[in-house]
Amino acid sequence: MTLSLWTDVIGTLAATLTTISFVPQAWLTWRTRDVAGISPGMYALFALGVALWLVYGILLRAWPIIVANAITLTLALLILTMRLRYGPRRSAAHDRPSPSGRTGR
Amino acid sequence: MTLSLWTDVIGTLAATLTTISFVPQAWLTWRTRDVAGISPGMYALFALGVALWLVYGILLRAWPIIVANAITLTLALLILTMRLRYGPRRSAAHDRPSPSGRTGR
Repeated sequence: MTLSLWTDVIGTLAATLTTISFVPQAWLTWRTRDVAGISPGMYALFALGVALWLVYGILLRAWPIIVANAITLTLALLILTMRLRYGPRRSAAHDRPSPSGRTGR
Repeated sequence: MTLSLWTDVIGTLAATLTTISFVPQAWLTWRTRDVAGISPGMYALFALGVALWLVYGILLRAWPIIVANAITLTLALLILTMRLRYGPRRSAAHDRPSPSGRTGR
Protein backbone atom coordinates (compact mmCIF):
# COMPACT_ATOMS: atom_id res chain seq x y z
CA MET A 1 0.00 0.00 0.00
CA THR A 2 1.11 3.55 -0.56
CA LEU A 3 1.75 5.86 2.38
CA SER A 4 -1.36 7.86 1.47
CA LEU A 5 -3.54 4.76 1.55
CA TRP A 6 -2.03 3.65 4.89
CA THR A 7 -2.76 7.12 6.27
CA ASP A 8 -6.39 6.89 5.14
CA VAL A 9 -6.83 3.43 6.66
CA ILE A 10 -5.27 4.48 9.97
CA GLY A 11 -7.34 7.69 10.07
CA THR A 12 -10.56 5.80 9.39
CA LEU A 13 -9.76 3.21 12.06
CA ALA A 14 -8.84 5.97 14.53
CA ALA A 15 -12.11 7.86 13.89
CA THR A 16 -14.14 4.66 14.24
CA LEU A 17 -12.52 3.73 17.56
CA THR A 18 -12.78 7.19 19.15
CA THR A 19 -16.42 7.39 18.04
CA ILE A 20 -17.61 3.96 19.23
CA SER A 21 -15.63 4.24 22.48
CA PHE A 22 -18.46 6.28 24.02
CA VAL A 23 -20.97 3.46 23.52
CA PRO A 24 -19.74 1.33 26.49
CA GLN A 25 -19.71 4.44 28.72
CA ALA A 26 -23.25 5.45 27.70
CA TRP A 27 -24.42 1.86 28.22
CA LEU A 28 -22.74 1.53 31.65
CA THR A 29 -24.23 4.84 32.80
CA TRP A 30 -27.66 3.92 31.46
CA ARG A 31 -27.66 0.60 33.30
CA THR A 32 -26.08 1.59 36.60
CA ARG A 33 -26.99 5.31 36.81
CA ASP A 34 -23.71 5.58 38.71
CA VAL A 35 -22.59 9.04 37.65
CA ALA A 36 -20.79 10.24 40.79
CA GLY A 37 -17.36 9.65 39.25
CA ILE A 38 -18.20 11.22 35.89
CA SER A 39 -17.06 14.80 35.36
CA PRO A 40 -19.79 17.04 33.90
CA GLY A 41 -17.01 19.51 33.02
CA MET A 42 -15.36 16.91 30.82
CA TYR A 43 -18.55 16.13 28.89
CA ALA A 44 -19.53 19.80 28.55
CA LEU A 45 -16.11 20.76 27.11
CA PHE A 46 -15.93 17.59 25.01
CA ALA A 47 -19.43 18.05 23.54
CA LEU A 48 -18.63 21.68 22.69
CA GLY A 49 -15.37 20.62 21.03
CA VAL A 50 -17.07 17.85 19.05
CA ALA A 51 -19.82 20.30 17.97
CA LEU A 52 -17.05 22.52 16.58
CA TRP A 53 -15.50 19.50 14.80
CA LEU A 54 -18.94 18.98 13.26
CA VAL A 55 -19.01 22.61 12.03
CA TYR A 56 -15.45 22.11 10.74
CA GLY A 57 -16.57 19.04 8.78
CA ILE A 58 -19.61 20.89 7.39
CA LEU A 59 -17.43 23.83 6.25
CA LEU A 60 -15.09 21.38 4.50
CA ARG A 61 -18.04 19.25 3.27
CA ALA A 62 -16.09 16.27 4.59
CA TRP A 63 -18.65 13.52 5.18
CA PRO A 64 -16.46 11.20 7.28
CA ILE A 65 -15.78 14.07 9.73
CA ILE A 66 -19.48 15.03 9.76
CA VAL A 67 -20.74 11.48 10.39
CA ALA A 68 -18.12 10.54 13.04
CA ASN A 69 -18.64 13.76 14.99
CA ALA A 70 -22.44 13.69 14.73
CA ILE A 71 -22.44 10.22 16.34
CA THR A 72 -19.85 11.22 18.97
CA LEU A 73 -21.78 14.41 19.80
CA THR A 74 -25.01 12.43 20.28
CA LEU A 75 -23.29 9.98 22.64
CA ALA A 76 -21.46 12.72 24.59
CA LEU A 77 -24.69 14.73 25.05
CA LEU A 78 -26.48 11.56 26.16
CA ILE A 79 -23.83 10.89 28.82
CA LEU A 80 -23.86 14.57 29.89
CA THR A 81 -27.65 14.53 30.17
CA MET A 82 -27.56 11.37 32.31
CA ARG A 83 -24.79 12.88 34.45
CA LEU A 84 -26.87 15.99 35.10
CA ARG A 85 -30.09 14.05 35.60
CA TYR A 86 -28.86 11.24 37.86
CA GLY A 87 -26.11 13.18 39.61
CA PRO A 88 -26.54 13.66 43.33
CA ARG A 89 -25.77 17.07 44.80
CA ARG A 90 -22.81 15.50 46.58
CA SER A 91 -21.07 14.56 43.36
CA ALA A 92 -21.93 17.86 41.70
CA ALA A 93 -19.97 19.43 44.53
CA HIS A 94 -16.96 17.31 43.51
CA ASP A 95 -16.32 19.56 40.57
CA ARG A 96 -17.27 22.88 42.03
CA PRO A 97 -16.19 23.33 45.62
CA SER A 98 -18.24 26.10 47.19
CA PRO A 99 -16.40 29.36 47.89
CA SER A 100 -17.03 28.81 51.58
CA GLY A 101 -15.58 25.31 51.35
CA ARG A 102 -12.00 26.43 51.68
CA THR A 103 -10.32 25.83 54.99
CA GLY A 104 -7.07 27.26 56.27
CA ARG A 105 -5.17 29.23 53.65
CA MET B 1 -11.91 36.30 7.30
CA THR B 2 -11.79 33.82 4.45
CA LEU B 3 -13.58 30.47 4.74
CA SER B 4 -10.22 28.71 4.95
CA LEU B 5 -9.12 30.86 7.88
CA TRP B 6 -12.46 30.32 9.65
CA THR B 7 -12.06 26.59 9.15
CA ASP B 8 -8.56 26.68 10.66
CA VAL B 9 -9.74 28.72 13.66
CA ILE B 10 -12.71 26.40 14.30
CA GLY B 11 -10.53 23.28 13.89
CA THR B 12 -7.94 24.62 16.33
CA LEU B 13 -10.60 25.55 18.88
CA ALA B 14 -12.26 22.14 18.45
CA ALA B 15 -8.95 20.28 18.97
CA THR B 16 -8.13 22.40 22.03
CA LEU B 17 -11.52 21.75 23.65
CA THR B 18 -11.61 17.99 23.01
CA THR B 19 -8.03 17.73 24.32
CA ILE B 20 -8.40 19.75 27.54
CA SER B 21 -11.82 18.21 28.28
CA PHE B 22 -10.10 15.18 29.83
CA VAL B 23 -8.33 17.34 32.44
CA PRO B 24 -11.42 17.80 34.70
CA GLN B 25 -12.17 14.04 34.47
CA ALA B 26 -8.58 13.08 35.36
CA TRP B 27 -8.62 15.60 38.23
CA LEU B 28 -12.00 14.40 39.57
CA THR B 29 -10.89 10.76 39.45
CA TRP B 30 -7.53 11.59 41.06
CA ARG B 31 -9.20 13.42 43.94
CA THR B 32 -12.20 11.16 44.59
CA ARG B 33 -10.92 7.78 43.32
CA ASP B 34 -14.58 7.18 42.46
CA VAL B 35 -14.22 5.04 39.36
CA ALA B 36 -17.24 2.74 39.66
CA GLY B 37 -19.19 4.66 37.01
CA ILE B 38 -16.28 4.95 34.58
CA SER B 39 -16.22 2.45 31.72
CA PRO B 40 -12.80 0.82 31.24
CA GLY B 41 -14.01 -0.27 27.79
CA MET B 42 -14.52 3.35 26.80
CA TYR B 43 -11.04 4.41 27.84
CA ALA B 44 -9.39 1.35 26.29
CA LEU B 45 -11.07 1.93 22.91
CA PHE B 46 -10.60 5.68 23.13
CA ALA B 47 -6.87 5.42 23.99
CA LEU B 48 -6.34 2.97 21.12
CA GLY B 49 -8.15 5.33 18.73
CA VAL B 50 -6.18 8.36 19.90
CA ALA B 51 -2.92 6.37 19.57
CA LEU B 52 -3.89 5.74 15.93
CA TRP B 53 -4.64 9.47 15.47
CA LEU B 54 -1.11 10.06 16.78
CA VAL B 55 0.31 7.66 14.18
CA TYR B 56 -1.83 9.41 11.55
CA GLY B 57 -0.35 12.78 12.56
CA ILE B 58 3.18 11.38 12.50
CA LEU B 59 2.66 9.91 9.00
CA LEU B 60 1.39 13.32 7.81
CA ARG B 61 4.05 15.19 9.85
CA ALA B 62 1.17 17.35 11.08
CA TRP B 63 2.36 18.85 14.36
CA PRO B 64 -1.03 20.12 15.61
CA ILE B 65 -2.46 16.58 15.28
CA ILE B 66 0.62 15.08 16.94
CA VAL B 67 0.61 17.49 19.92
CA ALA B 68 -3.18 17.38 20.53
CA ASN B 69 -3.31 13.59 20.39
CA ALA B 70 -0.16 13.06 22.48
CA ILE B 71 -1.74 15.14 25.28
CA THR B 72 -5.14 13.42 24.91
CA LEU B 73 -3.50 9.96 24.90
CA THR B 74 -1.59 10.78 28.10
CA LEU B 75 -4.79 11.91 29.85
CA ALA B 76 -6.86 8.95 28.59
CA LEU B 77 -4.20 6.45 29.71
CA LEU B 78 -4.00 8.19 33.09
CA ILE B 79 -7.78 7.85 33.57
CA LEU B 80 -7.69 4.21 32.35
CA THR B 81 -4.85 3.40 34.75
CA MET B 82 -6.75 4.95 37.68
CA ARG B 83 -9.92 3.07 36.64
CA LEU B 84 -8.06 -0.25 36.63
CA ARG B 85 -6.16 0.52 39.82
CA TYR B 86 -8.97 1.92 41.97
CA GLY B 87 -11.80 -0.09 40.46
CA PRO B 88 -13.60 -2.49 42.77
CA ARG B 89 -14.50 -5.95 41.48
CA ARG B 90 -18.15 -4.98 41.71
CA SER B 91 -17.82 -2.25 39.11
CA ALA B 92 -15.60 -4.38 36.87
CA ALA B 93 -18.57 -6.73 36.75
CA HIS B 94 -20.73 -3.85 35.52
CA ASP B 95 -19.15 -4.08 32.13
CA ARG B 96 -18.92 -7.82 31.86
CA PRO B 97 -21.92 -9.65 33.26
CA SER B 98 -21.00 -13.25 33.98
CA PRO B 99 -22.59 -15.88 31.72
CA SER B 100 -24.31 -17.31 34.80
CA GLY B 101 -25.71 -13.92 35.65
CA ARG B 102 -28.73 -14.24 33.40
CA THR B 103 -32.00 -14.99 35.03
CA GLY B 104 -35.19 -16.08 33.32
CA ARG B 105 -35.38 -14.65 29.87
